[in-house]
Amino acid sequence: MSRFWSPVVHTLSPYVPGEQPKRDGVVKLNTNENPYPPSPRVLAAVASAVERLRLYPDPRASHLRETIAAHYKVAPEEVFVGNGSDEVLAHTFQALLKHDAPLLFPDITYSFYPVYCGLYGIAHEEVPLDAEMRVQIADYRQPCSAILLSNPNAPTGSALPREAIAALLTEHPDQLVVVDEAYVDFGAESAVPLVARHDNLLVIQTFSKSRALAGLRVGFAIGQRPLIEALERVKDSFNSYPIDCLALAGAAAAIEDDAWFQVTRSRIMANRETLTRELAGLGFEVLPSQANFVFARHRSQGGADLAAALRQRGVLVRHFKRQRIENFLRITIGTEEECGRLIAELRGLV
Amino acid sequence: MSRFWSPVVHTLSPYVPGEQPKRDGVVKLNTNENPYPPSPRVLAAVASAVERLRLYPDPRASHLRETIAAHYKVAPEEVFVGNGSDEVLAHTFQALLKHDAPLLFPDITYSFYPVYCGLYGIAHEEVPLDAEMRVQIADYRQPCSAILLSNPNAPTGSALPREAIAALLTEHPDQLVVVDEAYVDFGAESAVPLVARHDNLLVIQTFSKSRALAGLRVGFAIGQRPLIEALERVKDSFNSYPIDCLALAGAAAAIEDDAWFQVTRSRIMANRETLTRELAGLGFEVLPSQANFVFARHRSQGGADLAAALRQRGVLVRHFKRQRIENFLRITIGTEEECGRLIAELRGLV
Repeated sequence: MSRFWSPVVHTLSPYVPGEQPKRDGVVKLNTNENPYPPSPRVLAAVASAVERLRLYPDPRASHLRETIAAHYKVAPEEVFVGNGSDEVLAHTFQALLKHDAPLLFPDITYSFYPVYCGLYGIAHEEVPLDAEMRVQIADYRQPCSAILLSNPNAPTGSALPREAIAALLTEHPDQLVVVDEAYVDFGAESAVPLVARHDNLLVIQTFSKSRALAGLRVGFAIGQRPLIEALERVKDSFNSYPIDCLALAGAAAAIEDDAWFQVTRSRIMANRETLTRELAGLGFEVLPSQANFVFARHRSQGGADLAAALRQRGVLVRHFKRQRIENFLRITIGTEEECGRLIAELRGLV
Repeated sequence: MSRFWSPVVHTLSPYVPGEQPKRDGVVKLNTNENPYPPSPRVLAAVASAVERLRLYPDPRASHLRETIAAHYKVAPEEVFVGNGSDEVLAHTFQALLKHDAPLLFPDITYSFYPVYCGLYGIAHEEVPLDAEMRVQIADYRQPCSAILLSNPNAPTGSALPREAIAALLTEHPDQLVVVDEAYVDFGAESAVPLVARHDNLLVIQTFSKSRALAGLRVGFAIGQRPLIEALERVKDSFNSYPIDCLALAGAAAAIEDDAWFQVTRSRIMANRETLTRELAGLGFEVLPSQANFVFARHRSQGGADLAAALRQRGVLVRHFKRQRIENFLRITIGTEEECGRLIAELRGLV
């Protein structure tokens, strides 16, 4: 603490990211990274871009935005890009979610959301997931300025169909609905096709999961132009060039290699089905997941103990000390070998 | 505009970065980039780091902070790193400069400072530079919460000696003094050696100028631990991983190649002296510069007209439409050939 701190600093409860171990040989199933490498085209694009390192990147990120726009069949002016979807979310909170009425989001969801509220002084209310840990859109019929859903939700993995998002948008025409689709490419339906019809929808996605580029820090939002303009105004008041020239080139190349994307996400979904079956066989309740992780609890063993025991055996999974989910483990879908190693270690523990 | 905008968005006047032309063959002396490439070690480090793209970067940036700390003879806990010094500045405004009393900075300085004040609702007062366009520390003896100086100042290029910064720190023991040293490596004295003795000093530097890495987006701050802790608390409430794995590796390699750094910055300083002499010979008043740019006005020709005429001839320089400096051009120091080209074009114009 220090007399120089701005008042808000004293009140912050910063987000705690999952561990990034320095030692090798760890089976890392704790931060929802892609177990397969990114497209070789990404590496080629990065290698070409090193020639431009002495120059500032394009502050408008035009090529990347055009590439995303073409892929998702929207206009480049309907795309905002940022330094990971975390930065896109931060700007969204400041630019679009700070109003007098509270923001609504689920009680069990991405734990960064209340942190952003603290940073920007945004009133919010947490809406409980139902008994099966699912979002029920009827529960959001209450006074609010905006609604934020992670879909599929994290850390539960369950997803709403597009028609439920459409119904939510229609029920709340004067509230912004932000859908954080970090995990959408593993079997859920994206809300992007609804953007054209709904001026109150902002969809946020990331390159960190399905594009295997967590290390490159690129995320994006798609919405109608006034929403994108708000994000740009905040971004241009914060940092003109948040995405470096290597990341701009690499991310565009990742979008362009759709075949790689399809193959790797299909493998992850297949591994998820196998892992779900094997966990069930070991006495785990596994929530139905449309993400690159599963959320599971054992019928007799506590979550914290299991996570610690796995850690001792060189397998990292994520455990959240939080009511309702304290007995769950969030397990990232790894390669076939990594999932096999997890199951083998669990056989010795449960 | 939209009914979904947070109130602050309506009031923002975003920063306008210098033009990044897409066509080749332009002599680009408008955004203070380094005219020489970065160290070859940077390219090697980036090439090695592509293997880690699927994994999140180290959220603490430990290796880079240790490398910076060793170079500047401070502790790693006295170093904060961010996505360019613009992001470091943004976090500094929010974490350390938002108080009831106004923040002071010069009337003519980096034009992003008032933009940050607008974004975070920070009261500020502009203190006029003296008639020779220099900072006089006596002018800062007035009620304030903090003082922010760019040293060397931009766009003037003039620098205060370290002893003036020390005097300012001693005169204002209960006010934070932030020194933005983006351009310090081109002949000015850094305030970093004062950090150990002054808990009210935060120094901010960048890899974009003297390390030739504007495209990589890395900046850093050095100060005593409570100041760094404030920045970390805000950063961890905003974006866990603002620096991608390629930038972490490349920036550390740049610090490690001190020989490259010394040779390129010496060439830039030598080119600056030549360019200053030649501009004077063409009738320009050139402010004494300790930066990688000069700030100059012609005795008879207006700044806006000259910038436009140079642009037509394929030479970009920066012109600011702002009282007191509207007849000045800010000219980045280029290679020997680029400076020669500028002078040749000016000979046809003045």
